[in-house]
Amino acid sequence: MNGEPQMSKFMSLARKFNCFYFNGDLQHCRPFLVCGKQVGVMQARVVEAACRYPDVFHLDSSGMVSLHPSLNSYEERSARMNQVLSQWKEERLFVTLKGWRNECYEVRTGFADPPLLKMDRSAACLFGIRQYGVEINGYTRHPQLGMCLWLQRRALSKPTWPGKWDNMVAGGLSVGHSVLDTALKEAEEEASIPAHLLANLRSAGSVSFYFESERGLFPNTEFVYDLELPADFVPHNSDGEVDIFELVPINQVMERIFTPDYKTTSCPTTLDFLIRHGFINSDNEPRLPELVELLHIPLHYLYSQSSSSSQSPISPQ
Amino acid sequence: MNGEPQMSKFMSLARKFNCFYFNGDLQHCRPFLVCGKQVGVMQARVVEAACRYPDVFHLDSSGMVSLHPSLNSYEERSARMNQVLSQWKEERLFVTLKGWRNECYEVRTGFADPPLLKMDRSAACLFGIRQYGVEINGYTRHPQLGMCLWLQRRALSKPTWPGKWDNMVAGGLSVGHSVLDTALKEAEEEASIPAHLLANLRSAGSVSFYFESERGLFPNTEFVYDLELPADFVPHNSDGEVDIFELVPINQVMERIFTPDYKTTSCPTTLDFLIRHGFINSDNEPRLPELVELLHIPLHYLYSQSSSSSQSPISPQ
Repeated sequence: MNGEPQMSKFMSLARKFNCFYFNGDLQHCRPFLVCGKQVGVMQARVVEAACRYPDVFHLDSSGMVSLHPSLNSYEERSARMNQVLSQWKEERLFVTLKGWRNECYEVRTGFADPPLLKMDRSAACLFGIRQYGVEINGYTRHPQLGMCLWLQRRALSKPTWPGKWDNMVAGGLSVGHSVLDTALKEAEEEASIPAHLLANLRSAGSVSFYFESERGLFPNTEFVYDLELPADFVPHNSDGEVDIFELVPINQVMERIFTPDYKTTSCPTTLDFLIRHGFINSDNEPRLPELVELLHIPLHYLYSQSSSSSQSPISPQ
Repeated sequence: MNGEPQMSKFMSLARKFNCFYFNGDLQHCRPFLVCGKQVGVMQARVVEAACRYPDVFHLDSSGMVSLHPSLNSYEERSARMNQVLSQWKEERLFVTLKGWRNECYEVRTGFADPPLLKMDRSAACLFGIRQYGVEINGYTRHPQLGMCLWLQRRALSKPTWPGKWDNMVAGGLSVGHSVLDTALKEAEEEASIPAHLLANLRSAGSVSFYFESERGLFPNTEFVYDLELPADFVPHNSDGEVDIFELVPINQVMERIFTPDYKTTSCPTTLDFLIRHGFINSDNEPRLPELVELLHIPLHYLYSQSSSSSQSPISPQ
């Protein structure tokens, strides 16, 4: 018994994009509830700032923070939240608000539930709001190079992760569009994939992970699609969000994901592809099941508090 | 806010094979440690029986049960455990021991760690020992029927789940064989797949779930493989463990998994196949990410206790 077995590069990477799951200071975090259901997690620094607005935020005796129950419509909740966030922005209280997007994010209990309020996208990480996106693994069985992935380098003008390597197509879910519609729209805008090639787009599941940065908390879920492309197709960008695309053989992808040039929060989708297609397997990753579990951490459970909390799944304490 | 959104058939099934994760009476369960590391979970009825053997089991003040530290070799631990189990078997204390296998299971901390002791396979569920297996999804793109899965009906002579529908090939990992070797061996023994077809065998990840039955606890991990087969190939059984094989179109698979004729603990691998290949997607399962999370529950974390427990991943309490 020599303690922890040596950790592989894959496992170390999984701890990096799940850094809040492993190292998060949860004792000092509070569940954030709207309409009696958990929608987020607030770090101590955010709870402290929120307590200055007792007519907007209510800290109850069980340690949960609720949006004040007197705010009883979507419009009212959104307006009051926006007032608070605007003030925090002026006060330069949180670094993430420097990147104010003027683009709102709809806050819901579950992915398929109706929105409870909206807030600027840059503020979602202050409240640990779950975020959903789509990502497309574009791949080619190249006659000389073998299996390859198309990667994009993000434009230097992007507000987040500028200049980093990323999966071929990625985008956040937006209101009024289904998951598949979003994937199709992003594939067209980001990579100019024509409709006849998009007919091969295949849903392949999802990844869930819990990242943290200086900006805040990122409990992210990505709907994952695979798209096999002909060897002679070359994507090109239409919306200015991509610097370049590069066709990268799998063995080089398996090196690039470990470099600081790769967007950390895009690694789960890339790893999921490499596992589903057999490139990462029990021969090169002895702890494969643990790695797979870390690509699908139980966010549904971490966000299961309610004001009248009933039975939840087990936790090993 | 109308409480829980309506649950799909897929989600209900995921709760069925994860019934211990959702409904397990964990307050009355105890972590089971060997050599200072958690290897299992013991239900109250088993803890009670174990307490009759204070020279074999030690219940400490923090509520964890350890195999007595004075048992300091693999042989000694295995021999004492076997004495206890044999006595329980004679006393008819636990229904699972009626199915004594005369086949031992190696108990380890992690999948890739050295074995700490062995016990009869029928007793592993009394101690909630993690079990690992391989499962192969054998599929065919049939010219008339479209995508089909080969399912097996288990022989009526099988000690567990006799007569139930199951994935084409399934088997437990055995000592001295790698995961891939086990998959190849089982494919040959159970379905007589010739070597030239097995060249197409592809590792596709793993599933993790936590089932409970009257026999005990089943924290199971299956290494998942996909095998595309030509439309004219028909598997046949060589070892007497399979009643019949049937080629089942995907839309029929999507019905059969909900019937009591399908082995509950084989559903995760089948669902994982249906998700990875796009048959279950965000259009027919609005809670797809939660379903995917429930195919990969964090067993690595549920089994992370040690006698000097340090920091663990977060839990939402």
